Amino acid sequence: MSTHVTLTDDSPGLGDVPGFQLAGVHCDVRGTGNKRLDLALIFSEQPAVAAGVFTTNDVKAAPVRHCQAILAGRDDFRAIVANSGNANACTGAQGMADCEEMAAEAARGLGISADQVFVCSTGRIGRSLPMDKIRSGIAEAAAGLSSDSGHSLNAAWAILTSDTKPKTVTAKFEVGGQTVTVSGMAKGAGMIEPNMATMLAFVGTDAEISRAGLQAALAAAVRSSFNSITVDGDMSTNDTVLVLANGQSGVSVEDTGSEAGEAFREALGQVCRKLAEKIVGDGERITKVVMVNVSGAPDNTAAEKVARAVGNSLLVKTSWFGNDPNWGRLLDAAGYARVGLVEERLDMHYDDIPVILAGTPQHDNLPQWKQAVSKKHFSISINLNIGQGAYSLLSTDLSEGYVDFNKSE
Amino acid sequence: MSTHVTLTDDSPGLGDVPGFQLAGVHCDVRGTGNKRLDLALIFSEQPAVAAGVFTTNDVKAAPVRHCQAILAGRDDFRAIVANSGNANACTGAQGMADCEEMAAEAARGLGISADQVFVCSTGRIGRSLPMDKIRSGIAEAAAGLSSDSGHSLNAAWAILTSDTKPKTVTAKFEVGGQTVTVSGMAKGAGMIEPNMATMLAFVGTDAEISRAGLQAALAAAVRSSFNSITVDGDMSTNDTVLVLANGQSGVSVEDTGSEAGEAFREALGQVCRKLAEKIVGDGERITKVVMVNVSGAPDNTAAEKVARAVGNSLLVKTSWFGNDPNWGRLLDAAGYARVGLVEERLDMHYDDIPVILAGTPQHDNLPQWKQAVSKKHFSISINLNIGQGAYSLLSTDLSEGYVDFNKSE
Repeated sequence: MSTHVTLTDDSPGLGDVPGFQLAGVHCDVRGTGNKRLDLALIFSEQPAVAAGVFTTNDVKAAPVRHCQAILAGRDDFRAIVANSGNANACTGAQGMADCEEMAAEAARGLGISADQVFVCSTGRIGRSLPMDKIRSGIAEAAAGLSSDSGHSLNAAWAILTSDTKPKTVTAKFEVGGQTVTVSGMAKGAGMIEPNMATMLAFVGTDAEISRAGLQAALAAAVRSSFNSITVDGDMSTNDTVLVLANGQSGVSVEDTGSEAGEAFREALGQVCRKLAEKIVGDGERITKVVMVNVSGAPDNTAAEKVARAVGNSLLVKTSWFGNDPNWGRLLDAAGYARVGLVEERLDMHYDDIPVILAGTPQHDNLPQWKQAVSKKHFSISINLNIGQGAYSLLSTDLSEGYVDFNKSE
Repeated sequence: MSTHVTLTDDSPGLGDVPGFQLAGVHCDVRGTGNKRLDLALIFSEQPAVAAGVFTTNDVKAAPVRHCQAILAGRDDFRAIVANSGNANACTGAQGMADCEEMAAEAARGLGISADQVFVCSTGRIGRSLPMDKIRSGIAEAAAGLSSDSGHSLNAAWAILTSDTKPKTVTAKFEVGGQTVTVSGMAKGAGMIEPNMATMLAFVGTDAEISRAGLQAALAAAVRSSFNSITVDGDMSTNDTVLVLANGQSGVSVEDTGSEAGEAFREALGQVCRKLAEKIVGDGERITKVVMVNVSGAPDNTAAEKVARAVGNSLLVKTSWFGNDPNWGRLLDAAGYARVGLVEERLDMHYDDIPVILAGTPQHDNLPQWKQAVSKKHFSISINLNIGQGAYSLLSTDLSEGYVDFNKSE
């Protein structure tokens, strides 16, 4: 019964979805005077149902608070306005007022209500937004919306901070002769951790679904995508994933057991995973992308602890940077997750090359180990052989470039 | 009633304590052929009571298992043998046998029993010890013991790995005309975290105390010293703190309320704190030592969570390296500790300079902030103002040199 989902990588993004218009403009949020795009507007021609997942940091930026406040209230959202260069975080009452004004300004330009507008900001923490610039940027974007691929990609560029390229993907599937589209754009780079960090992702779809159905589908998709990646273990004040569903295809995906319902959840999952992979692959000055697979743990939570201990260990990450197959550091990190690891039972592989079997290092494989960890993409698989729990985490190395890049802003 | 404790920094170490003899020799554990000292022997002329604190990593090196196994069994310990260059960790049954042989070899040389001998190893994980070299090193050390300062410092040198200098300290106090001495030596460098990591510390004293009394005194001293430091958040397979008390001064320090009992605990605490500071200050390629003080947390555990989130954040540590007073990253890290921080109540200071008061950044102080975080030693004080919990963590910056140093072994 499963329907084939077609994924187009580096697509134009949300402009691919019928009923969505976008713009990305330059309004000099950073004050550097260069012509970098820094304000994006996403507009849904029809009222759309929305779902969102947000940072769990105690310190939440003003736009996160705004999005959370309006999300539960209605089923007729119309827009997302997002700026880069300034996170509007730790900006107190002024920050909240500025955020509300961004929504109001977009609503004015689009002829809708302010609480139909989501607001997102990303960039430096602790500075007030340059509201004159932001206001004129929003007005310009609202006047220049289009569904063409150029405008759509401009929006994808405008939300970037230290990313090196825009991140977009489109999934399509057909049910009963009708095509349904799910498209997304994202920004990532540093501060990517557990529960999402300085990470924005916006997804649009013309599927028809309820608010509750969309929220459940998004939560499931996020678990195995944005929440399973790490660059530096830091979690930001602004992380936001938003999905808008305008129902324009006329295809209901509400029923999880239906052909359309299954295909939609598969498509949304693929879009989120692809965006998450792009975020990790474009982490600040990274040179390696490493999948850490943990299995045989007492339970999934224990497996996640081990995967995060390994994937966030500075000593492990620096060894990856140096092409050093240092399984001792991996084992050490797995051990300090303290889930009851029994050294004598543990198996470890680099890709499919045995490194440790039942606690015994397979030193004869050293040349192959070295080869595996010298690649840009490889996997580390650790089987604790003490239970059924499993977890996979996509991680990166830690380079001198990362330190150089982050030593000041 | 409190007795004055006199601390001598960079003392000869355990040779200062009546009844202890030491040796540090070269036996080429690393196989590099250079003349670096790599095997230390500490000998107590009299049977000594012992206490120990060990890594909580699930993966424990053979010598840790050996020390834990013999510790509870007797009150007449006589020696510690320790090598650097090889951790004898993740070495399976062979590793355990090698460790027992180290104890047996030392016992043979000293005319004592093997289970009166503690064994410690530090260095590379996952390689078997070069036992021929180790055996001849132990024999040479046992034949060349002395209490003079040269021998004592040789032992302190012999346990180092990536440390740049030996770490020793001596505390003395007088009670009723009798002098009591507490001396220690340590090694640290990378992998220094919470519950101690690739960290060895050996303390000797001529105080008279029971096994249980000594263990309790050590546990208290470790809490506010070795367990309150971090360099890279990694916790090793080999961390060990051992104290030997030979009772030779004739001064009983058993009673915690007595003058001698108080002075002893104060002296032991000072010795451990000084050694911990030396470990952090000599962290791999660090350029800054930062005290992170958290107060006003719901409880001490919550305060520790915040301090560790801040002190282990890559983004925070790289900003320290860059002399960047980036309080946004500090606040972000404090927030993801998720202890219920309320942004509007939080105060933050760099040394005594206000950075945030009741959630509001004090931007006028920027020049002073910059000055504070440009120093080699400074403090970050965060008051959450929501409870009475407090915790202090000694941390370091993260330099490009650290990455370069650790990218391969």
